[in-house]
Amino acid sequence: MERISDISVLNQSIEGARRQGLTVGLVPTMGFLHRGHLSLVKAARAACDFVVVSIFVNPTQFAPGEDLEDYPRNLQRDEALLQEEGVDVVFLPSVADMYPRGFNTLVKVGEEMTSKLCGKSRPTHFNGVTTVVAKLFNLVRPHKAFFGQKDAQQLSIIRRMVKDLNFNIEILSGPIVREEDGLALSSRNVYLSEEERRDARVLSQSLGVARAMVGEGILESRRIIHEMQSLVAGTPRARVDYIEIVDPETLEPLERIAGKALVALAVYVGKTRLIDNWLLEDQNVSDNV
Amino acid sequence: MERISDISVLNQSIEGARRQGLTVGLVPTMGFLHRGHLSLVKAARAACDFVVVSIFVNPTQFAPGEDLEDYPRNLQRDEALLQEEGVDVVFLPSVADMYPRGFNTLVKVGEEMTSKLCGKSRPTHFNGVTTVVAKLFNLVRPHKAFFGQKDAQQLSIIRRMVKDLNFNIEILSGPIVREEDGLALSSRNVYLSEEERRDARVLSQSLGVARAMVGEGILESRRIIHEMQSLVAGTPRARVDYIEIVDPETLEPLERIAGKALVALAVYVGKTRLIDNWLLEDQNVSDNV
Repeated sequence: MERISDISVLNQSIEGARRQGLTVGLVPTMGFLHRGHLSLVKAARAACDFVVVSIFVNPTQFAPGEDLEDYPRNLQRDEALLQEEGVDVVFLPSVADMYPRGFNTLVKVGEEMTSKLCGKSRPTHFNGVTTVVAKLFNLVRPHKAFFGQKDAQQLSIIRRMVKDLNFNIEILSGPIVREEDGLALSSRNVYLSEEERRDARVLSQSLGVARAMVGEGILESRRIIHEMQSLVAGTPRARVDYIEIVDPETLEPLERIAGKALVALAVYVGKTRLIDNWLLEDQNVSDNV
Repeated sequence: MERISDISVLNQSIEGARRQGLTVGLVPTMGFLHRGHLSLVKAARAACDFVVVSIFVNPTQFAPGEDLEDYPRNLQRDEALLQEEGVDVVFLPSVADMYPRGFNTLVKVGEEMTSKLCGKSRPTHFNGVTTVVAKLFNLVRPHKAFFGQKDAQQLSIIRRMVKDLNFNIEILSGPIVREEDGLALSSRNVYLSEEERRDARVLSQSLGVARAMVGEGILESRRIIHEMQSLVAGTPRARVDYIEIVDPETLEPLERIAGKALVALAVYVGKTRLIDNWLLEDQNVSDNV
C-alpha cells in the first residue's frame, strides 16, 4: 500500500494506474474507520483494479462551534485496516495543500437540497462536502466512487453534483452497517456515554416503527413521523432535530409513501447529534434496519 | 472533423483519443468565430494531438435583458473555419443537454474576483462562466485549455477555479487580436453602427495613453486612469463603465504599477458594451495595443 500525502505524487500514481488501463476506485473518508467504511472499501476492492482511500478531516464542512477539533482520529489503526483490505493508495493530504492561501472557489448544489434535513442545523455543511469531493474527484480521477447510504442526503447531493457538472464517475452506495442492537455505525458514536449509548438505539428503533407501519399499509408521512417522534420524545436523553420522509433523489417532502422514499432522522443524544435513515425502494425494505 | 452534439458520443471520442495516448486540447467558444478565436485554435493545434472546439452560447452567463437572444450566430461559417484549421472535433451541445430539468449546481469563485470590473454590471456572469467551463472540462477532459487574453477577468477567474478545484488541466492564454485601427476583435463588434465603430477605437487608444504614460515613468494608477477617462469622455457615443488597474492574478486594485499589472476597461459605445485591456508583465509591454 502506497501512503501518499503529496498531491503531485498522487497525480503520478494515478496517471500510472490509468496508463495501465486499470479501473480506479475512490472511497473518500474522514478516517477513524469503522466497519461501515470498510464495507465500502471491500466494495471498491471487488469492483476496481486500483483502490484509493482518502482520509481527510475536511475543515470546510464543519461550522464554527462544531466538532472539527474533537473529531476522532487514529491514523495508525486506519492504515493497518486499509492495508489488510488490500488498498493500493491511502491519500492523506494536508489542510494547507487542499486549501492554500487565496483559495476562493465553492461548488454549491442548490438550497432546495442543501438547506433542508441536516442542512437546517448545518447550513454551510454541504457546500464544504461538494467542494472537497469535487477536488478529490479531480485529484484521483476515479472511474467509480463509493459513499455510504448512512449519509443519505450527502449521497443525493453528490449524485446531483456529478450529474450537473458531468463528472465521468459512477457513484455507488453501500448499505448502512449497524451494531447488533441496531445503532448505525458512526465515528461520532465514541462521543456517547454509556447511558447515551443505550438511548441512541431510539434512532433505529423509530425506523423500525416506520417499517412496521408501512408493513401494515399505513403510508401517510404525517402519521408515521408522529409515531417516530413519540418514541424519541419518550427517551430521556434524546431530542429530535428532524424526522422527515422525502423523495431520495430530490429530497422533496412526500405527503404519502409511494414508490421510492427516504425516511430520515437526526436526533441529539446528550450533546451528540446522530443520524439514521431507511431507504424504501418501491415500498420494499432495502436496508437492514 | 467530427461534428458532435451528443454527450455520450463525445465521451466515446475523447476516451478513444485518450486511450491512444493523444494530448487533448480544448478551445471553448460561443461561436461566431473571428481571428481571435482562430488564433487560439491554431495554438491548440500546435500544442495538442487532438483538438476539440466547443460552440455553446451559454444561457447561464447572460442576465435577463442582456443579449442572449441577439447573440450573433453563424454555425455553417464556424464549422468551415474549424475544418480549415484541422480541428478534430467540434462539440455543439444543446441547452437541454447541458441544463436538463432539475439542474441545480453552481461553481462559484469568490466575490472578491467575480463582483468587480465586469462583475459590477454583470453580477451573475462569472458564476455562469465557471459552471459551464467546469462542465466542459469534465466532458472533454483536456490536458490543455485555451482562453483569450481579451477576457482578462474571465481568464484570472478560470485559473483560480482550476487551481482551487485541482483540475489537472493546463490553462493557456492567447494575446488579444485586433483590427488594423486597434479595435479588439469581438463577436459583439457586429452590433456597432458605422459611427459607433469609429468611436470604438477609443478603447485601444486609451490603453495607448496608458502605455505612453508608463513609458514616461508615470506609474500612479489614479493619474493614468484619469487620462484614460478624459479621452473616453471626449468621445461622443462612448461612456465609461469602468477603467481599473489591478493585479492580474487576484484582480485587487493597484495604487501604483509595480511588477505585473492589468489595465482593464469596459466602455459603452452606443448600447454596445465593449471591453479591452493591457497586460503589463514587469512593466514591459506584453500585448499588441
